[in-house]
Amino acid sequence: MSGSASRGLARVLRQTKRPSIPRSQARQCRPLRPLIVPVRNFSATTRRREDTSEPHHNVKYTTDMYPTLKRDSRFSEITPEHIQFFKSTLGDDAAIIDGVTHDASDDLEAFNTDWMRKYRGHTKLVLRPKSTEEVSKVLKYCNDNKLAVVPQGGNSGLVGGSVPVFDEIVISLSRMNNIRSFDDISGILVVDAGVILEVADNYLAEHNHLFPLDLGAKGSAQIGGNVATNAGGLRLLRYGSLHGNVLGLEAVLPDGTIVDDLGTLRKNNTGYDMKQLFIGGEGTIGIITGVSVVCPQRSKAVNVAYFGLPSFENVQKAYKEAKVQLGEILSAFELMDARSQGFVHQVTGNKRPLEGDHPFYCLIETSGSNTEHDSEKLEKFLEYVMSEEIVSDGVLAQDETQVKSLWAWREGITEAIGHFGGTYKYDLSIPIQELYQLVEDTRDRLNSKGLVGDDDSFPAIAVVGYGHMGDSNLHLNVPVRKYTKEVEEAIEPWVYEWIQKRRGSISAEHGLGIAKKKYIGYSRSETMIKLMKQIKELYDPNGIMNPYKYI
Amino acid sequence: MSGSASRGLARVLRQTKRPSIPRSQARQCRPLRPLIVPVRNFSATTRRREDTSEPHHNVKYTTDMYPTLKRDSRFSEITPEHIQFFKSTLGDDAAIIDGVTHDASDDLEAFNTDWMRKYRGHTKLVLRPKSTEEVSKVLKYCNDNKLAVVPQGGNSGLVGGSVPVFDEIVISLSRMNNIRSFDDISGILVVDAGVILEVADNYLAEHNHLFPLDLGAKGSAQIGGNVATNAGGLRLLRYGSLHGNVLGLEAVLPDGTIVDDLGTLRKNNTGYDMKQLFIGGEGTIGIITGVSVVCPQRSKAVNVAYFGLPSFENVQKAYKEAKVQLGEILSAFELMDARSQGFVHQVTGNKRPLEGDHPFYCLIETSGSNTEHDSEKLEKFLEYVMSEEIVSDGVLAQDETQVKSLWAWREGITEAIGHFGGTYKYDLSIPIQELYQLVEDTRDRLNSKGLVGDDDSFPAIAVVGYGHMGDSNLHLNVPVRKYTKEVEEAIEPWVYEWIQKRRGSISAEHGLGIAKKKYIGYSRSETMIKLMKQIKELYDPNGIMNPYKYI
Repeated sequence: MSGSASRGLARVLRQTKRPSIPRSQARQCRPLRPLIVPVRNFSATTRRREDTSEPHHNVKYTTDMYPTLKRDSRFSEITPEHIQFFKSTLGDDAAIIDGVTHDASDDLEAFNTDWMRKYRGHTKLVLRPKSTEEVSKVLKYCNDNKLAVVPQGGNSGLVGGSVPVFDEIVISLSRMNNIRSFDDISGILVVDAGVILEVADNYLAEHNHLFPLDLGAKGSAQIGGNVATNAGGLRLLRYGSLHGNVLGLEAVLPDGTIVDDLGTLRKNNTGYDMKQLFIGGEGTIGIITGVSVVCPQRSKAVNVAYFGLPSFENVQKAYKEAKVQLGEILSAFELMDARSQGFVHQVTGNKRPLEGDHPFYCLIETSGSNTEHDSEKLEKFLEYVMSEEIVSDGVLAQDETQVKSLWAWREGITEAIGHFGGTYKYDLSIPIQELYQLVEDTRDRLNSKGLVGDDDSFPAIAVVGYGHMGDSNLHLNVPVRKYTKEVEEAIEPWVYEWIQKRRGSISAEHGLGIAKKKYIGYSRSETMIKLMKQIKELYDPNGIMNPYKYI
Repeated sequence: MSGSASRGLARVLRQTKRPSIPRSQARQCRPLRPLIVPVRNFSATTRRREDTSEPHHNVKYTTDMYPTLKRDSRFSEITPEHIQFFKSTLGDDAAIIDGVTHDASDDLEAFNTDWMRKYRGHTKLVLRPKSTEEVSKVLKYCNDNKLAVVPQGGNSGLVGGSVPVFDEIVISLSRMNNIRSFDDISGILVVDAGVILEVADNYLAEHNHLFPLDLGAKGSAQIGGNVATNAGGLRLLRYGSLHGNVLGLEAVLPDGTIVDDLGTLRKNNTGYDMKQLFIGGEGTIGIITGVSVVCPQRSKAVNVAYFGLPSFENVQKAYKEAKVQLGEILSAFELMDARSQGFVHQVTGNKRPLEGDHPFYCLIETSGSNTEHDSEKLEKFLEYVMSEEIVSDGVLAQDETQVKSLWAWREGITEAIGHFGGTYKYDLSIPIQELYQLVEDTRDRLNSKGLVGDDDSFPAIAVVGYGHMGDSNLHLNVPVRKYTKEVEEAIEPWVYEWIQKRRGSISAEHGLGIAKKKYIGYSRSETMIKLMKQIKELYDPNGIMNPYKYI
């Protein structure tokens, strides 16, 4: 497989044209070289449960990691009568039941464990409804009978929000996977919550449109889950957040009420925008079953460039210049530090896009309607940042394959880092000037405590920073050989205090889940938390929705 | 004034370059001519109370127009003790009090009456706090004492939402008008709610940025009011809605709680996005006092073209083509019908941009970072739509003055139509294919009832349609010589039923206020209305916030 991919790439490389920047124009700067990136059997879009090599039963239970958590005694235990109701309502094949369904134990573990193998619950029952009405019946019954539930989409979250803690019933949306409608004049798409992001985007591609959200886990993440977690992703910079792009939602409240707010209008100022509470609500007040979203025209021209830079100051200069010179065609500006790229190289074995080592790397993507104009803008920009020595070296993708290869150096980081054991992951919003300072401060801190180093005697392997520069969103990652109290206590709550001082966010895009629940106070005032609890109480007075998490 | 403006324009015209489309390229289509538009003393940005020629006391009281409305007996009447509290809290000059303040009667009328002279309240007290803390103290006192209030910004709304009905106290935000901060790397602006939209946009222009909202009333509308009404405006097509662009809010709840959600982060997934309830909440659950908003780079190149088209079918074709060919630089696609442009011509006396009559007109604006590229794209597009005979004739603005002049043909419609007396105004979202059908159906309906015509014996003057084609948002206007029951009953609720059948919105961007309150059921289900009422009850259990309106 890897050999055949390499052959494919070689063929592409023979067809490669000269670099887009004419040498004559680029006299004063080091020339951009054509990209040479062998591709192996490695993809950031394969974050599926099936890909994890470690068996589920080796994963620690969340209840062991959080020993102070107690099962809420308000919740009922599942009885044969409950099972009977679910079977008669949904049909026999819609339930996976411990001790009843064939191979249930293994099947259940896939729903009990997250893809990072960091969280593991004790559910004994998974329900897979096929319609909004079925979700409504099930949820009303659970609410009436005080049965706690966890809505689950693609289970690709990073904060343990989509797996149970105790014996909550998993309600999987995976069978609700129909694309309901698409209008190619207005660009408005309506889908079931369980449609996989990549499936929707591929469908839109056939109609020259684009899903306004893109992320590494697109091959398994479901749109309902994306909306429930207000996923940010790779192209928020260009297309904005789901709070702006989601035009309508259909959701089910714990009492079975169907919130029928699935409008397909760009403008509708008739009352409170109720759907917004479900966007980023992480399934704690209801289950999203349908989504209406406005999708932009797919760009005819997509260009990707990859640079090495000598300092974070230069990264900022490059970003500011990109905003001015690339303006409306800039669709991504991603930051990767040296260590992050080292890990991708080490794990994939792929040849690095640039020769030599650089302290920082950036990936810039432009998307526009005119190839010639976009190339001209990008080349002018590249020439400028090279001649001004803002950027030390760079390559420009020459075709779609190379675009994907360059993106793999950004999208592959999470998986590469996860290869060595566990990872302490922090997803932070920080004022842009201080964005990378946190990585350095964390590195200094762990170094001074003798906790990070290359040989196996150190618990932590490295301190890595990367993220969405354009959104001022840093992913701070500390890969470890094993999880230890020393490392955890060296980082937390220190990192949250660091963020609080700068009025940043302790969870920029991953959400709260169980991982960040107790730290919300570092990013939200008591007043805000009180108001949020009021909302939770209003819609879910029995507390059955995704308990032990969020706020 | 008008003479001097004309002289200024003549000078511009002498400098005018040849039309941007080279004649040779445009051989097969009728050439685009340079624009000749004399400018008079007329501006769509002057929707201020001072400009209305009719004295306030000629405006009918809202209570007379809606005789079934009764003052809510839960609310207290204002007493000298109340006045004493407000004076001691805010200072003597912060209150305008009937019978106390010098010239109070005239001053109060300005706050009691909307700019359309359609709604008029009976307030006897206006409070003008200078800080969020003052708003908090005042609101808590009003809530404790069951005094009803109306928050008021620039009072430029179109549905009577910002003026009192009975004796509600007006809380004017006009003294809270500081720009709090701006960061030119991230583009994030923080302002007091009372900052005038145009003031903020001019400030941003100095820093090469742009407020992501623009509308005709920008010269008087305040940002707090824009957010409270979720204003859509002219450039939503390009920059998206306030639900996406507003990053943070500061607001005061009736009990005096300060909602301190004024974040300046593009991403912050830590709990329910509470601020969204205030965006479009029309001051019914709290008063917005501060706004944080992400502002895009100001485009270096802005081009505006104005066309005549033979049919609405061709308007759709032109729109679809504009989306494909202009893509990322398309910043407005506005529709105006023949009658709307006739009114602007009649009222302003300005020379029309195009010769001859066309059934439809469109205004296209592009905004981008490279003048040459944008012109090339626009010219290629224009050439295409002319040669394909999608468009019958068109002009392209050659400089900033001409850009403004062309925009005046779109932005000036509201004021021009309002010149003849009253106007029945409907602001509707309709699936794009049927957008203009409603204008024709309404015209047929009023014609068949003998209610519309050129001479003074008809109550209605015309049926006019224009709006934001890119947002599928139609403004249906019926200017009348006088308001009559016959006309009203011919249009309502028929127009709302028409919208309901097509699952459109009875208020796309103007909001509900008092005008649309009773029609919400045509665009929202009983479930949604119930959920909204729950929210209202949660935050404003005494119902003091902007009563008699919204839901």
